[in-house]
Amino acid sequence: MDLANYLPIWNKLTAEQQQRLLGVTHPLKVKAGTVVHNGSMDCLGLLLIRSGQLRVYALSGEGREITLYRLFEMDICLFSASCVMPSVQFEVIVEAEKDTELWVIPSCLFKNLMEESAPVANYANQLISSRFSEVMWLMEQIMWKSFDKRLAAFLLEESNLEGGSVLKITHEKIANHMGTAREVVTRMLRYFQSEGMVKLTRGAVELADPEKLEQLSE
Amino acid sequence: MDLANYLPIWNKLTAEQQQRLLGVTHPLKVKAGTVVHNGSMDCLGLLLIRSGQLRVYALSGEGREITLYRLFEMDICLFSASCVMPSVQFEVIVEAEKDTELWVIPSCLFKNLMEESAPVANYANQLISSRFSEVMWLMEQIMWKSFDKRLAAFLLEESNLEGGSVLKITHEKIANHMGTAREVVTRMLRYFQSEGMVKLTRGAVELADPEKLEQLSE
Repeated sequence: MDLANYLPIWNKLTAEQQQRLLGVTHPLKVKAGTVVHNGSMDCLGLLLIRSGQLRVYALSGEGREITLYRLFEMDICLFSASCVMPSVQFEVIVEAEKDTELWVIPSCLFKNLMEESAPVANYANQLISSRFSEVMWLMEQIMWKSFDKRLAAFLLEESNLEGGSVLKITHEKIANHMGTAREVVTRMLRYFQSEGMVKLTRGAVELADPEKLEQLSE
Repeated sequence: MDLANYLPIWNKLTAEQQQRLLGVTHPLKVKAGTVVHNGSMDCLGLLLIRSGQLRVYALSGEGREITLYRLFEMDICLFSASCVMPSVQFEVIVEAEKDTELWVIPSCLFKNLMEESAPVANYANQLISSRFSEVMWLMEQIMWKSFDKRLAAFLLEESNLEGGSVLKITHEKIANHMGTAREVVTRMLRYFQSEGMVKLTRGAVELADPEKLEQLSE
């Protein structure tokens, strides 16, 4: 187990703390589509991502979703240990978007380490500040950026993540990422198609003119 | 100086840390309208509010504003010490909405205390989690709640803060709080007036039927 590579504060822990961490941290493999954390219902622990991809999203009372951010290899998922931080007064859902391999640091151990070690507490602080920054970025996008620009940026990001110009994604799913209704996405995609920026087929969106999308998104 | 009342972690500090805090913490009085903190330009320190009211808001590239949250007596303003937390990658502006009396804990001392004391680091963590929660709440309002409901809730909150049913506030200012354009506010207020919920006069909005506004906001 090479926790030292995944935890930037490894060297700031005492030998005894390192031993405790090694003693309880365990691997976890989840299939794409698995919900790893669901609001305050559960409190699995801190998740270190060895491979794969997680999506963190918020859910409205009516079941609408919006993707807050994604986590990739070497990232750390903090909200799956939200019970450790009672001041976090909101709920998010964490879902594996791809088959994902994790290490789990159980919440109770992480809580103890935070209480006894200033470096661990400051590290938690850094993590939460980073996520806060991502949500602020998203909120500013929603507030100040029109939907066509946001959708263009989303398609480019997806194409980047998937490494191809054909996205196997439904309009419904795009709507869930962006916190809007399916009809809104469909209407805008049709407009993009009429402008030659995308090509729509059943269950897929092809980026026909990424450069034009790029220009639009800026 | 009764810092002990304002800092919940006072008793978790060593006598020496308490002395250092007392040595550098200083009072500050600002007039209503003063910008206390402006993005990353300055890093005054942690602000403890003895009396008055601060508004924390974000600003778009085009100069549009949105109020993120307000701070009142006994609250602590963290982002005025944002240089202490390099993972905070966004900028906010902090403005006094009323004449305000503060205590300032200089950033460099706060940084030192965070590094050496787990309780201080965890306290900073709590503060940032609380603000994060307020911003998440706001984002969910923006995403899932229609503008009429948000405006009704805003008017009721203002009336609550000012302790009266006549709000001396311009449509422009309401727009700045809510992150929208003045025209959008004016249109909705006129609709509220036609429904008997408010009465509009020059530079003021009177809440004519708070109960109806309450119902709408829920």
